[in-house]
Amino acid sequence: MTRHGNGTADGGEQVTAAAIIIGNEILSGRTADANLNYLARGLTACNIRLQEARVVVDEETAIIEAVTVCRHRYHYVFTTGGIGPTHDDITAAAIAKAFGRPLTVHAEAAARLLAFYGKEHLNEARMRMAYTPEGASLIDNPVSAAPGFRVDNVFVLAGVPSIMQAMFDGVKGGLLGGVPLLSDTVVAYIGESLIANPLAALQARYPELEIGSYPFFRLGKFGTSLVLRGTDPQKMCDAASELAAIITALGVTPLREETSAD
Amino acid sequence: MTRHGNGTADGGEQVTAAAIIIGNEILSGRTADANLNYLARGLTACNIRLQEARVVVDEETAIIEAVTVCRHRYHYVFTTGGIGPTHDDITAAAIAKAFGRPLTVHAEAAARLLAFYGKEHLNEARMRMAYTPEGASLIDNPVSAAPGFRVDNVFVLAGVPSIMQAMFDGVKGGLLGGVPLLSDTVVAYIGESLIANPLAALQARYPELEIGSYPFFRLGKFGTSLVLRGTDPQKMCDAASELAAIITALGVTPLREETSAD
Repeated sequence: MTRHGNGTADGGEQVTAAAIIIGNEILSGRTADANLNYLARGLTACNIRLQEARVVVDEETAIIEAVTVCRHRYHYVFTTGGIGPTHDDITAAAIAKAFGRPLTVHAEAAARLLAFYGKEHLNEARMRMAYTPEGASLIDNPVSAAPGFRVDNVFVLAGVPSIMQAMFDGVKGGLLGGVPLLSDTVVAYIGESLIANPLAALQARYPELEIGSYPFFRLGKFGTSLVLRGTDPQKMCDAASELAAIITALGVTPLREETSAD
Repeated sequence: MTRHGNGTADGGEQVTAAAIIIGNEILSGRTADANLNYLARGLTACNIRLQEARVVVDEETAIIEAVTVCRHRYHYVFTTGGIGPTHDDITAAAIAKAFGRPLTVHAEAAARLLAFYGKEHLNEARMRMAYTPEGASLIDNPVSAAPGFRVDNVFVLAGVPSIMQAMFDGVKGGLLGGVPLLSDTVVAYIGESLIANPLAALQARYPELEIGSYPFFRLGKFGTSLVLRGTDPQKMCDAASELAAIITALGVTPLREETSAD
């Protein structure tokens, strides 16, 4: 895989990512996570497959373990949370340990904080936000100055959703995308158990596609969203036609939803 | 730890849990997870500490790995998703493999499906939902009959939120709770960087408590929610008084939020 912004992986490689949501408040239920879905949709739009997400406590060992496993297993890792000015913001220190690097003042980060707060308001707590693992590159924070940072394939983002989103939007253009994953959704007002057998047979005929079945209850009726995902446009088209025929044969009208890189 | 419903662990032990959210649709961003926060709040209310959550793809190896790690590390594991009638519902088979048990028809599950659907509608696909790892006990599904199940310390719940919630509510009374975790929230309209230093000192004086700082922007003003968590009522009370004094000394009026087992 060569690294070039807005490009695609060589040789049809699938580019993968993991998300690590750092925060006791998510695990206690005090706060509902609002970042995973944004990252998931954003990565999918970049043709990057989010393969795993973990929510971990604000403890160094937990953060180090999750980052260490994921950074070796996936092309990209995105963390959210724990980069503010208080004592419970330990993400930068944990990432430094995970990479075996010292945590040092990043001169450019310090300069940005100074410009934003002014000398009289840049107190010791705020200066904590200028520390990064040695050799990190900064990720812009257009909302409140204190930057995120990147070390190797790990992107360290804020936990506050508006800031996290701005940071992710700023870096996503530089991510190496994989082969576009195509998606085609067919909706049928039919119970999923009625279509389960022909659907399993369709999956067996198209092992290179991923066929998902998601039941729903909408406007007083049970139905099933059937989602085809794959990278080969011809196979996708063929499978979608067969799926429509299967639904029609069951006496139901298949409804096509907008095709997208879902 | 002795196991008895609605009880507490012996010797002041902290009871822990992990959640495993199974579903490609969460990782592609097609669906926003709605189960984690419900589980988190429910477990917290039972004095059980959700220590970790993982979102994994619908693949046997991914499910087996997550379940195997978590069931040895935590007292309880809750999975959501992948127990429906279609080919992509592979949770029961993966859990069976994780425990090294055969996947067999659970007679009581089959009887419930038969009673719900009637003989003419209990097709092969629906009958898939009667299979559990050998020796599993069933978890009631008051919404649509097809049960969840429990194997040892692993609770396998549906992915559809209304069903997942009903299943969890049905089992939570039988969970062994830990020492009640007390929570006390003090809100101050003050930037968190201004209180960071005295807060770190307070944390150092009360190492047995967990002090979290959560910035917010509300009604046009920046503020910080400061959350104390711990099991010792006297320490909680002392620390809360000190925290109020710290805020007052900064010229701000501390606002107390309702105390709860957050």
